[in-house]
Amino acid sequence: MRIIETRSAPNPRRVRIFLAEKGISVPFEEIDIMAEAAKTPPFVALNPMQRVPVLILDDGTAISETVAICRYFEEIEPEPALFGRGAVGRAVVEMWNRRMELGLFGAIGQAFRHLNHKMSHLEVPQVTAWGEANKDKARSMLVMLDEALKGRAFIAGEDYSIADITALVAIDFMKPARIEMPAGLTNVARWRQSVSSRPSAQA
Amino acid sequence: MRIIETRSAPNPRRVRIFLAEKGISVPFEEIDIMAEAAKTPPFVALNPMQRVPVLILDDGTAISETVAICRYFEEIEPEPALFGRGAVGRAVVEMWNRRMELGLFGAIGQAFRHLNHKMSHLEVPQVTAWGEANKDKARSMLVMLDEALKGRAFIAGEDYSIADITALVAIDFMKPARIEMPAGLTNVARWRQSVSSRPSAQA
Repeated sequence: MRIIETRSAPNPRRVRIFLAEKGISVPFEEIDIMAEAAKTPPFVALNPMQRVPVLILDDGTAISETVAICRYFEEIEPEPALFGRGAVGRAVVEMWNRRMELGLFGAIGQAFRHLNHKMSHLEVPQVTAWGEANKDKARSMLVMLDEALKGRAFIAGEDYSIADITALVAIDFMKPARIEMPAGLTNVARWRQSVSSRPSAQA
Repeated sequence: MRIIETRSAPNPRRVRIFLAEKGISVPFEEIDIMAEAAKTPPFVALNPMQRVPVLILDDGTAISETVAICRYFEEIEPEPALFGRGAVGRAVVEMWNRRMELGLFGAIGQAFRHLNHKMSHLEVPQVTAWGEANKDKARSMLVMLDEALKGRAFIAGEDYSIADITALVAIDFMKPARIEMPAGLTNVARWRQSVSSRPSAQA
């Protein structure tokens, strides 16, 4: 088993943190997506979406999409549960992970992809107005998140989950995406300090 | 238990098809998102993302995000399995559902939201160039999907899954989004005929 990644990209970091929280060790293999390594025919055969990370199982099965890779590891190693427990718990984690992914991680990613000239060969066409609109969307989500974090430890409730991983990686990626944190979000700041101090955050 | 929806919107249809495949009956309650019914304070308290559908459990717990709602029903009624079976099977369904959701459903939705003047109060700002770019993204995904469907019955393999639901609802929404199906996609056409003929497609 091995995982193909580009270490500087945000999605592979979500998988690395997830595995660190599980205590699972998997060899990683670096490719350079900025040099279009994901557009070569052998890579496209592994993942037609031309994105990292990709998990390659011992029988050659290729699993791409960050959350699909994480779900595979949740299935083979259920503890600690990072996708929630029970029907309601799992639905609540799915809900919050999706809010963080579609609303926050996605918006920050769109701002980066559409406003950074280094991305012009990967995001075609770059649309400046759309990149700028996403800066506002990301900031609005952070205000919503601050409200949600009032009086609870983690994003989906009292237990750390994949929703915290998605949000942490997203927020740390605001710097390369050149988005400023809105002022006064004390709950987000407290939560960020907490999740950033876990050993997994260094993964 | 009840589900708040807007019947004409694509995401609630994903839940209706999912429930029809499971043979589960849940009362639906209609609100008009076009008339900003999702922006009222009582609704925002249920779902700060201001989107439908929302599942309200008997104890008042509100679950939003389409796939989170579907996952709740998969947990309480595992058969027929629509999220796959076993660690690899579940990861493969997650991967394909995400490709269909982020790459196809998302692109068609962005084209609709950014190019339809009726959406101008819900998608602020509308960015025409981004809407047009998504028409091409959707068509590229359909070409990829046609290749993937060569020699297999359903999108994630030999079993019908939530990935088929996401793709069917997305493709049926190309008409309101004014995106034409690329010519010559015979595998997509054969698959579409098959999934459209299931009773659930009328849900």
